[in-house]
Amino acid sequence: MLVVQKYGGSSVAGPERMRAVAQRIAQVHDQGHSIVVAVSAMGDTTDDLIKLVTAINDKPDEREMDVLLSTGEQISISLLALTLKGAAKPVISLTGAQAGILTDSTHTKAKILEINTRRLEQELQLGKIVIVAGFQGIDRLNDITTLGRGGSDTTAVALAAALKADMCEIYTDVDGIYTTDPRLVPDARKLKEISYEEMLELASLGAAVLHPRSVELAMRYKIPLVVRSSFNQNPGTTVKEVDQVERSQAVTGVAYDLNVAKIGIFNVWDKPGIAYKLFKTLSDQNVNVDMIIQSSMHNEVNDISFTCAQADLKKALNIIETLLPELGADGFTSDADVAKVSIVGAGMLSNPGVAALMFEALCEAGVNLEMISTSEIKISCIIRAEKVQQAVAALHKKFNLSSED
Amino acid sequence: MLVVQKYGGSSVAGPERMRAVAQRIAQVHDQGHSIVVAVSAMGDTTDDLIKLVTAINDKPDEREMDVLLSTGEQISISLLALTLKGAAKPVISLTGAQAGILTDSTHTKAKILEINTRRLEQELQLGKIVIVAGFQGIDRLNDITTLGRGGSDTTAVALAAALKADMCEIYTDVDGIYTTDPRLVPDARKLKEISYEEMLELASLGAAVLHPRSVELAMRYKIPLVVRSSFNQNPGTTVKEVDQVERSQAVTGVAYDLNVAKIGIFNVWDKPGIAYKLFKTLSDQNVNVDMIIQSSMHNEVNDISFTCAQADLKKALNIIETLLPELGADGFTSDADVAKVSIVGAGMLSNPGVAALMFEALCEAGVNLEMISTSEIKISCIIRAEKVQQAVAALHKKFNLSSED
Repeated sequence: MLVVQKYGGSSVAGPERMRAVAQRIAQVHDQGHSIVVAVSAMGDTTDDLIKLVTAINDKPDEREMDVLLSTGEQISISLLALTLKGAAKPVISLTGAQAGILTDSTHTKAKILEINTRRLEQELQLGKIVIVAGFQGIDRLNDITTLGRGGSDTTAVALAAALKADMCEIYTDVDGIYTTDPRLVPDARKLKEISYEEMLELASLGAAVLHPRSVELAMRYKIPLVVRSSFNQNPGTTVKEVDQVERSQAVTGVAYDLNVAKIGIFNVWDKPGIAYKLFKTLSDQNVNVDMIIQSSMHNEVNDISFTCAQADLKKALNIIETLLPELGADGFTSDADVAKVSIVGAGMLSNPGVAALMFEALCEAGVNLEMISTSEIKISCIIRAEKVQQAVAALHKKFNLSSED
Repeated sequence: MLVVQKYGGSSVAGPERMRAVAQRIAQVHDQGHSIVVAVSAMGDTTDDLIKLVTAINDKPDEREMDVLLSTGEQISISLLALTLKGAAKPVISLTGAQAGILTDSTHTKAKILEINTRRLEQELQLGKIVIVAGFQGIDRLNDITTLGRGGSDTTAVALAAALKADMCEIYTDVDGIYTTDPRLVPDARKLKEISYEEMLELASLGAAVLHPRSVELAMRYKIPLVVRSSFNQNPGTTVKEVDQVERSQAVTGVAYDLNVAKIGIFNVWDKPGIAYKLFKTLSDQNVNVDMIIQSSMHNEVNDISFTCAQADLKKALNIIETLLPELGADGFTSDADVAKVSIVGAGMLSNPGVAALMFEALCEAGVNLEMISTSEIKISCIIRAEKVQQAVAALHKKFNLSSED
């Protein structure tokens, strides 16, 4: 069997954790399996490197940032390899470049183009444990690149896909994917299985254990991912194809997001190109718009509401102010004191009453709905920020998520 | 003009020094010259990295150590490039691998085989300042190597040779090469010029500003080196071919070494192969022997004396004890409480009275000579360790080294 494992920064922070990880890796190897391991930078290494830069350049060049930041993973792989060598295991570390991870040239957020597996396969054939630097690659100019947020997860999934691995385990500091945030709802339950699509909806909604990019990649290549903790032996959550997930319930999890602001524009002209004009301008200025609702109130005019991240609110309002004449709008309003709660579940597709159940739960909990948006496997509502805990708890209870599915 | 500069670890330790170095580099570039810079790891980075290893592996694999240690220079080059970018200078950093520095596979002390200058020349043609990681390269397997002690000096000289540079400046934390250690003799004088050969004798004797490997390389390719401080604008010392050094004095400098132990073996058989047997065995066990003196006392037996580093003394004595029967020797003695003082100067060749003057100076200072060894441009004496300062001062004065040559 060929196993790919990924260990996050907290899993390798310090010699003791490094040894625990090495033991886990050695076990797989001792059982006769081939194993490739992607590793992140240790603990705060990346932050420490960024701190070095702030003293010398406040708008650092991205190519040079990649040269700098990639040293974090290079340190981890050598130390992890030395730990395994110390336990007399055959092992070799490879930087992204040495592992053949070819990316485009978008420094600090490069995309993997392909993996030349020659060296990897050669070392595996020699029976070696192969430790690969996560988060990094090399472009066609032979320049070092980094993959941006969630980069090491992406490295692991890409390696698993390129090597046609039998299993891809993502080790992190949580036990797996939960039905909702256990800090909010103490009886939140760890899921045994979840589909890629549900995971994507949950991840982008704040339950950010796996970066969406790595989930998308796993989905494209049908690589089952196991998300589990490196601090215990608990089994974790498997992320896999939707038709292979056993399910008895319509809803899989409840997510929430406090980093939301709501904007409303009144009496926009009801003519073609108006929405395009508005959202194209916002997108050109890098304002990420999430929920969009347009409702026809009277003839010939509309109200348009949408949400964005709180950090983008000011920028969005400036843009709207400039655009008002073109939109023919009367005015606009905004509110940053809101939150989004969502229920996610592939089972919704065949359960038409789910939305009604959601609204019932929120109503019973005294939570007012300010915006509603639905997709095939998700229903989201904008509510007052201070009602988040009540809302999430009520939804978790209504959909019976604390009992085994 | 094409200039190669090298900055040592203390020259780039911290953002302020980094900025001063960047300014110096920018000045050369602003004057219209092409410039390539080799940089060491900042301050204590290498020691800090080694400390990370001691907690996990007490006999670390050398390939993995190179993966680890090479990050030190990779951090320096990116930070120095970001400093220059911050000052709006065109600049690019290159790791050893990217700079085309091909080495053999002797990890932790690799030798440079050749430099593929394609990328370097390409970046220079674009008008860029090129910052290269010192101390590192890549072998034919695409594995990272490091060059060992003095590695960054060697990188700079090798770059200067490969690019046919007009000048190679080695920036360090001292002003240049002195006639002797200024801590011992306050009126030690900085030399304007010195030959490669003299520099080699001085370096290996303890005045270790330039590593002997880099001096040998410079000598082979006739690259004049300028050794100077990055902390001031003083002109430094030029190391160059012996026939281009202007000299009026027989002696160029006085060196000393306290890390010496003396061993004497009594009444060794006077027959062929005995000295070979002794020194071959010592060398096989990595005991570096320095001065060797053999004196015929009677017929058929000899006394053999030699010196080695203090750390090797115990090992050497163990070897000799085992060999005694084969050597036919009566016994042996050792003394670690000694030091070596040497005078160095290419001018000795044409000044036959130099040795006599040296012995006169030491005699006048009340220093007893325990061993004497001479080469073409150096005379060394073993003396009591506690007499070192007196001896060095007396020699410095006798050869008039504090006055301008």
